Amino acid sequence: MLYDHTQVIRVLIPDKPGAFGRLTTAIGGLGANIGDVRFIKRGVTHNIRELEITVRDEAHLARVAAAVGRLKDMRVERLLNPVLEAHRGGKIRVSSCSPLTQPVDFRRIYTPGVASVCEDLVAHPEHARDYTWLGRCVGVVTNGTAILGLGDIGNIAGLPVMEGKCVIFDQFAGISGVPLLVSHKRPQPFISTVLGVAQSFGAIQLEDVAAPECFEIERELVRRAGRPVLHDDQHGTAVVVLAALTNACRLHGLELHEQEIGVLGLGAAGTGIVRLLKKAGVTRLFGSDIRPEALRRLKALGGKPLGPQALAKRCRVLVCTTGVPGLIKPAWVRKGQLILALSNPRAEIEPAAALKAGAALAVDGKSVNNALAFPGLFAGVLDAGVPHFTTAVLLAAAGALAQLASEHELVPNVLDKGVHQAVRQAAYDAALRSREARPHVLD
Amino acid sequence: MLYDHTQVIRVLIPDKPGAFGRLTTAIGGLGANIGDVRFIKRGVTHNIRELEITVRDEAHLARVAAAVGRLKDMRVERLLNPVLEAHRGGKIRVSSCSPLTQPVDFRRIYTPGVASVCEDLVAHPEHARDYTWLGRCVGVVTNGTAILGLGDIGNIAGLPVMEGKCVIFDQFAGISGVPLLVSHKRPQPFISTVLGVAQSFGAIQLEDVAAPECFEIERELVRRAGRPVLHDDQHGTAVVVLAALTNACRLHGLELHEQEIGVLGLGAAGTGIVRLLKKAGVTRLFGSDIRPEALRRLKALGGKPLGPQALAKRCRVLVCTTGVPGLIKPAWVRKGQLILALSNPRAEIEPAAALKAGAALAVDGKSVNNALAFPGLFAGVLDAGVPHFTTAVLLAAAGALAQLASEHELVPNVLDKGVHQAVRQAAYDAALRSREARPHVLD
Repeated sequence: MLYDHTQVIRVLIPDKPGAFGRLTTAIGGLGANIGDVRFIKRGVTHNIRELEITVRDEAHLARVAAAVGRLKDMRVERLLNPVLEAHRGGKIRVSSCSPLTQPVDFRRIYTPGVASVCEDLVAHPEHARDYTWLGRCVGVVTNGTAILGLGDIGNIAGLPVMEGKCVIFDQFAGISGVPLLVSHKRPQPFISTVLGVAQSFGAIQLEDVAAPECFEIERELVRRAGRPVLHDDQHGTAVVVLAALTNACRLHGLELHEQEIGVLGLGAAGTGIVRLLKKAGVTRLFGSDIRPEALRRLKALGGKPLGPQALAKRCRVLVCTTGVPGLIKPAWVRKGQLILALSNPRAEIEPAAALKAGAALAVDGKSVNNALAFPGLFAGVLDAGVPHFTTAVLLAAAGALAQLASEHELVPNVLDKGVHQAVRQAAYDAALRSREARPHVLD
Repeated sequence: MLYDHTQVIRVLIPDKPGAFGRLTTAIGGLGANIGDVRFIKRGVTHNIRELEITVRDEAHLARVAAAVGRLKDMRVERLLNPVLEAHRGGKIRVSSCSPLTQPVDFRRIYTPGVASVCEDLVAHPEHARDYTWLGRCVGVVTNGTAILGLGDIGNIAGLPVMEGKCVIFDQFAGISGVPLLVSHKRPQPFISTVLGVAQSFGAIQLEDVAAPECFEIERELVRRAGRPVLHDDQHGTAVVVLAALTNACRLHGLELHEQEIGVLGLGAAGTGIVRLLKKAGVTRLFGSDIRPEALRRLKALGGKPLGPQALAKRCRVLVCTTGVPGLIKPAWVRKGQLILALSNPRAEIEPAAALKAGAALAVDGKSVNNALAFPGLFAGVLDAGVPHFTTAVLLAAAGALAQLASEHELVPNVLDKGVHQAVRQAAYDAALRSREARPHVLD
């Protein structure tokens, strides 16, 4: 637990020629690689430096630290985990858009000036888009029941993920995400709690809420919240998968809508993928899951249930979202198959093993990240001022992502801000075109 | 409505000597004062400038604009209301504490690195203070029922005030305030909704919730939310009033706790003031209100009801929080009286009129602003990691504010960041000293 291969060791070193060489020789001699070295503090006789070192595990780290401690005139000051350090104090903040330093600022931003803005909004509630942050604010709402692949670990343990979503909203789209932790697992109290505070947000992103409760929660909130609501684990994932499959087919000279596509694992992500693939024109959809309710959802969407092995052997295109590492045996892989094995942190089949077994293309979840979709999706519908996400918006975003990938990629680089701007524009245009259409999940 | 004395007029002016003089002469000739002039754009034959002008009302502004429009070769491009412009797009944003530009950032802040932070929090929930934003995040919670002096104008019209609170939290204390708009007016659904999302925040500031519902709401949330909860309109106001009265008495050679103090208006603010004055050692407290339930609250706190005129004539110290402009007649003013007439935007008696009628000191709500207290109060209890606000914390904050005022002031300057730092430190120290004490409102 908490283990990360790159660790930081802070060392007190004598300020003498040769000392740093002794230190790095000792570390290297134990098989640890040295990365960045930072000078932290200069003293009279000793200095403090931080060294990034790559170790195999905690025992290895302990051996390195002990060896450094035995070096003459040196001392380990501290071991730091760079991942934990990146989260220290939390990852987001709420800040003012302009400074508050002069009396005139105070009178305009707060009393008495703000009263005239309140009165304007009483007369013209539609001006809320102009004079409040609602036009660029998204509630990132969870109950902690399906955090990453870790399961029902609760709201507090899941909060770093929600803050991470908000970092992504800010950095990729200038959208203000607000983590909202709901203390209810059953759909009805969850729904009524969120409806009771829905006015706080311009849109609502449901995040890491477990299946099957997520389906009832999303449908009801889409119906009643009066603003765009999207369960990212379903539809954000589906948008990125559709983009990736579009390009996978293009790379292998196939037409996506002519393929038999198998979706293995029909939780939130799998169900969202089936729904969007159907809307994209795929007619031969197959699915597999051990839960009867999941298969009922599949059939309601027009898909056909199959066992996992039969599914894998039959379908040219295979998408896996089971959370079960190693589920797909190499013997099941069909020659020329296109496989997205998306479970994190370990895939249903390692891409290398799938390719060796005859697949034409195999990738895991590292390549297909829903952070590609959600910032632009939300920014686009907020810009458009529409009350819900339509199928057209999701298809347009998938189309934009597919087009933005370079010739040999399935999806473009998530760190390219131009990508998010293009998704935003596509979502915006589609939202305006489809503003009379029903919401995606009710369609 | 929407009216503000200072307006901005954007004018297209010929680039010729004498033109600006013609413009300013025309504006001044209509009795409007000219403030800042900004050069906006230079053209080939014409330039664009913005002039701040102070006018009497909208009709006056219209006459000025019409006169400018009639000037030879000039044109009014736009009239801007600087208060509305200061609120355009909202006043706050959520942003990332560090940039997300490199693959290593993504892996640390989001997947896969974030999973190790989640696992640490599963094992050590108390680390949430270290690895999430909860240690510096406050929910600013309202239902829009008592926004400023405007009353029950609803959540959306009140949102600019909540954003203003968040601006103040950020600018004065580096605290992240999050507006939370609750769609319930009755206490029980309000309480259960807030409890359902209370985990999202390190502390909760209740804001502009109407009396008497605010009392039940606050007590219940203090009991059940498991984190500091404070209704600012009651206790933030009370802290600033106690500081102001402490200095008012000092300036006039009086001992605060020996005075007969009258509180006129026993809504949220008045009730909070009575409660804190009693804790500060004032034994002779009188109050006045037209609502029987308000008088019951007063008596439960040990105060004595009186009619408004009798109260004003009897008490050496008078605090007014009625929301009724002009309620106090000059004939009621007692010689040597100290009067805080706090209702905004118009006081119960204008300070000048009160002084003329014999008061020794009279101020209105412009001087006694609860933004002096709440940033430091919340920052201090969050720093201390205690589960509630105690009386000791409120008294310590009031004491710090009283001490920070200069010799002839009642309270210090709200724009002085050192003031908020001192309140924070006082609240922090008192929170640690009184961590075994009961919450203020249950004490």
